[in-house]
Amino acid sequence: MLSEDKNQLARRGRLRTVHGTVETPAFMSVGTAGTVKGMTPADLEDLGAQIILCNAYHLYLRPGHDFIKKRGGLHPFMAWNKPILTDSGGYQVFSLNALSKITEEGVEFQSHIDGSRHFVSPEKAIEIEAALGADIIMAFDECLEYPATRERAEASLNRTLRWADRSMSAHHREDQFLYGIIQGGCYPDLRKQGLEGLLHLDFDGLAVGGLSVGEPQEEMLKVLEHIVPLIPKDKPRYLMGVGTPSDLVEAVSRGIDLFDCVLPTRHARTGILFTSRGDLHIKNARFKDDDLPLDPDCRCYTCTHFSRAYLRHLFLSKELLAMRLNTLHNLYYYLSLMSGLRKAIEQHSLDQFRHRFQHNRAIGI
Amino acid sequence: MLSEDKNQLARRGRLRTVHGTVETPAFMSVGTAGTVKGMTPADLEDLGAQIILCNAYHLYLRPGHDFIKKRGGLHPFMAWNKPILTDSGGYQVFSLNALSKITEEGVEFQSHIDGSRHFVSPEKAIEIEAALGADIIMAFDECLEYPATRERAEASLNRTLRWADRSMSAHHREDQFLYGIIQGGCYPDLRKQGLEGLLHLDFDGLAVGGLSVGEPQEEMLKVLEHIVPLIPKDKPRYLMGVGTPSDLVEAVSRGIDLFDCVLPTRHARTGILFTSRGDLHIKNARFKDDDLPLDPDCRCYTCTHFSRAYLRHLFLSKELLAMRLNTLHNLYYYLSLMSGLRKAIEQHSLDQFRHRFQHNRAIGI
Repeated sequence: MLSEDKNQLARRGRLRTVHGTVETPAFMSVGTAGTVKGMTPADLEDLGAQIILCNAYHLYLRPGHDFIKKRGGLHPFMAWNKPILTDSGGYQVFSLNALSKITEEGVEFQSHIDGSRHFVSPEKAIEIEAALGADIIMAFDECLEYPATRERAEASLNRTLRWADRSMSAHHREDQFLYGIIQGGCYPDLRKQGLEGLLHLDFDGLAVGGLSVGEPQEEMLKVLEHIVPLIPKDKPRYLMGVGTPSDLVEAVSRGIDLFDCVLPTRHARTGILFTSRGDLHIKNARFKDDDLPLDPDCRCYTCTHFSRAYLRHLFLSKELLAMRLNTLHNLYYYLSLMSGLRKAIEQHSLDQFRHRFQHNRAIGI
Repeated sequence: MLSEDKNQLARRGRLRTVHGTVETPAFMSVGTAGTVKGMTPADLEDLGAQIILCNAYHLYLRPGHDFIKKRGGLHPFMAWNKPILTDSGGYQVFSLNALSKITEEGVEFQSHIDGSRHFVSPEKAIEIEAALGADIIMAFDECLEYPATRERAEASLNRTLRWADRSMSAHHREDQFLYGIIQGGCYPDLRKQGLEGLLHLDFDGLAVGGLSVGEPQEEMLKVLEHIVPLIPKDKPRYLMGVGTPSDLVEAVSRGIDLFDCVLPTRHARTGILFTSRGDLHIKNARFKDDDLPLDPDCRCYTCTHFSRAYLRHLFLSKELLAMRLNTLHNLYYYLSLMSGLRKAIEQHSLDQFRHRFQHNRAIGI
């Protein structure tokens, strides 16, 4: 950790990996199948991306973890030489498989690609992640649905803790950091149990899982306010799958170091663009004759070269370039937001930053 | 014209426009709807693209030529500051409209987007092209089907000549060059008539139209061998819609200066890649474990960063990046081929260049 505001939980840190250093708080662009959709590694570097996330579940199914291992791992395979984090596949096994069958041993599920049947245990998940060779890997956890009864949440948490133990035992690559995942739903005492169970195992970092699954922001923040202060300060804190720009600002203010989310990339492809004055849908008729850039305050390639009118034309014409320019802009927005947050923490001006952020977005386009 | 080989019709030239100079022979990437699919203007500049082609037909229908005129024309609208050529829409009116109705006045057709009815005459085509503001614009012609009877070819040629006259009369922007289109199908005397009719009108350049519509390469080359030597040397010669790498090499050898074709961009999106050793289909199972680049002799971004195995994975996963990396490679291949041809003409070594080109492609992947 580099600095911590006296009156804030927010902190400015640095994660060191064999593929380089990540200045935190940081946002990880999602590169599900070994590519951040539409972006080259050169684009990502230009955007200032420090670390990306890839999905073990997708890469295990296609092209296969052994296949990638034979190519020297994900880094050379996708030509990305900076840090990578892989999730363990737990979330995908549950969210993409209505027919998954959970036992104490692991999860049996059907491929969403060809319907073939597969079985992943904590040991298998770690084997897959070791083969992929990311710098940070995640323990295999059970993902709780939202909402869930206390009984369900407790049973699920206990299984996640047993799986965390098995994940840790299977972990063997010294060049990979292994993070544990705190579950427990919206039950404060279960979250605390979840954290304590993981602390015994001495993970390299701790992730808050099971959020951003449909609950209101307020509820998510309550979980963070409760749990983050209990995490030892030397452990990186990763909030999985979150979130909107506002979620990021609020979670950083509550001490989160690391994020990943499909929103900037997925929204870009459906024409929803993030700006300092709020979000806009480029297909909206009001942008037909609009010669302004998406965000007049933005310095990205898209905003410095193209008008909303042109981007709307590309989007309505279903042009490939629409997805690319939109993705470029949205990632730039997210990564700039993070660098703004880092700077604000360094300058002890996070409160002003939050205030300005909220004020500007309230103005609207 | 810069140089001309004594024993060759091939020539090395230079086209000057208000948006810059084009070294010829040159290939124009196709940017139908105001974007070369998936490429940013920065990509195109990096690839060495000197000039691109946009389709008046598509831009007239969407977003509209007046709309683009209000934005200052195509150049600022699409952020491409180098030369642009627009076709007149003649070809699209015929090829995209089974129900088009031709009269002496012009063509009535249905939009392929929303079915609305439109009418384009030579005067209207020039008005559209003036509004779009390209550096080189094309006369409005009738496109002959292949094969066509002599009677049909003659009637069509005569209409094209009357329309060329009307196109010339409607032409008024002094910053735009207007090219005429030589029709006449595969009938040598009609082609000659077509050329002579246009020479009376003193177009800035002459295009050979109605080729690459299904005829064998041999037949196309016969037309070129017949007609190109009859074109005055001070007129740029543009072979419309052609073609394969071999077509380009052979047509340059027969004195063509300018080309456009959708092949490199369209094939890229379907996974067909051009290489110095011939074409390959990336989805082919033989490339599954292939850690070589697409073309080991190629210096493009795709070939210097990614393996066939990775590109095949992206293609099978229907990833956006597949289309982009493939397009980048294919355009690099085409543009490198053209710069190789220019250099060979300068060095009076075109015969060796052709020989090496054919020899290498015959080796296979």
